[in-house]
Amino acid sequence: MDKRPIGIFDSGVGGMTVLAQIKKYLPNEDLIYLGDTKNFPYGDKSKETIIKLSTKCIEFLIRQKVKMIIIACGTATSQSLEEVKKIYRLPIEGIIHPTVQDIKNSIKTEKLRIGVIATEGTIRSNKWQEELIRAMKEVEVINKACPLLAPMAEQGWTNNKVAKEAIKEYMKPFQNQKMDKLILGCTHYPLFCDLMKEELGNDVEIINTGEKIAKYLKEYLEKEEMENEEQHVGKSNYYLTDTECNFIEVASRLLKDETLETKIQKIDIE
Amino acid sequence: MDKRPIGIFDSGVGGMTVLAQIKKYLPNEDLIYLGDTKNFPYGDKSKETIIKLSTKCIEFLIRQKVKMIIIACGTATSQSLEEVKKIYRLPIEGIIHPTVQDIKNSIKTEKLRIGVIATEGTIRSNKWQEELIRAMKEVEVINKACPLLAPMAEQGWTNNKVAKEAIKEYMKPFQNQKMDKLILGCTHYPLFCDLMKEELGNDVEIINTGEKIAKYLKEYLEKEEMENEEQHVGKSNYYLTDTECNFIEVASRLLKDETLETKIQKIDIE
Repeated sequence: MDKRPIGIFDSGVGGMTVLAQIKKYLPNEDLIYLGDTKNFPYGDKSKETIIKLSTKCIEFLIRQKVKMIIIACGTATSQSLEEVKKIYRLPIEGIIHPTVQDIKNSIKTEKLRIGVIATEGTIRSNKWQEELIRAMKEVEVINKACPLLAPMAEQGWTNNKVAKEAIKEYMKPFQNQKMDKLILGCTHYPLFCDLMKEELGNDVEIINTGEKIAKYLKEYLEKEEMENEEQHVGKSNYYLTDTECNFIEVASRLLKDETLETKIQKIDIE
Repeated sequence: MDKRPIGIFDSGVGGMTVLAQIKKYLPNEDLIYLGDTKNFPYGDKSKETIIKLSTKCIEFLIRQKVKMIIIACGTATSQSLEEVKKIYRLPIEGIIHPTVQDIKNSIKTEKLRIGVIATEGTIRSNKWQEELIRAMKEVEVINKACPLLAPMAEQGWTNNKVAKEAIKEYMKPFQNQKMDKLILGCTHYPLFCDLMKEELGNDVEIINTGEKIAKYLKEYLEKEEMENEEQHVGKSNYYLTDTECNFIEVASRLLKDETLETKIQKIDIE
């Protein structure tokens, strides 16, 4: 058993959708969350910049003595995971592999039609498509970049009229496509899940990568005997690189935790 | 007289609203436009990064032998103009000074109430407020950051339902404020001008900085005897650092020029 906390990072508030699922599946693990809000958005930055930023986030979390790291950011997963895995010895996982493996293990139909929505950077990297095709032969992927959604979530616009109209617009390519699943390839997107359901109806399964990561993490820690077996409710600590943002408002609503503000510290990782 | 072209740059398509006005006021000047679309958005990048990017844009334009440079980007003006003016010998101007001077010269009322909308970076820099207060004593400034508007314009969403709802939301702090003017402190924003007028009515003068810059430029070139006095219609050349974007679609519509695509070259300024 391993009492050290799990480290989680994202460019902003999106990764909190992953943290919420990890809390649910692994309630007695301690968690350390880093939101690199100073450098938000990652979505349209170059691969080189994303690698540099991811490295800084990982090194901060290593200094907090975490036992493993979850890159709870679609863009950082697609642009930097391969590279950072070569550098660091501790286990690091992103949002793509656990999600694709879970889909693979659960498929019932022979042919799958899967939609992927994500930032420009993630869609351009083609990582989701590559990993889906590698895991399953008979899969057709429909990609769509949704560059406004992460900034919108970061601003707290997840259920107002602007968000509604934006989701309507972004869901258009998926209408009447007989899709089986829609993967939310950016961790900010579960914040719009209800609006997406309204547009797509019940026939399309919307995949929240946070849940898949939490399930993967549970299995991984058990297999490696790295669980925190203490009989307690795990603590979470939150670090932000910039606090002049709507993180607290959006995250408090998501976690239903009104005391969140008191658990947040501003730090510098440069 | 000086036949060399005028250089103009922005992070994306926004500066084209300035170029359109310069074409109108100075039809026989040759123009060179640089859209740093690869590094869009500038709006939430650090001051240090903006200075580095502005320097690269300016050096590219200097290599094109321009006679002067207009920073047609609100964020780059507020974050880097002071610094780059110290480095380069050729005249460089941004969007703030010409606009404030024009307002100062045209005021009729004693007390002015002015709204400023811009990116996060520009609002945080406080440059508009500082320059307005320095120029006019009796002025009250209401600031509002509109972080989604530039990405929305860049995506071509300037008149759809999403844009309409976003403008409604962003105009709320200016309702019933008895404002005299609203300065569009980001060059992308004139693309939403009609929607803003619908919200604010006719009592508020919406200030398109492009027009102020064009007027300033005309006076400056005359005073310095730097006009291009050839009897011809000036040529414009366009350079983008990334062409995987909606620049052509948005800019063609703005300039009403269907042949724009043929005049665009992709370049690397790194």
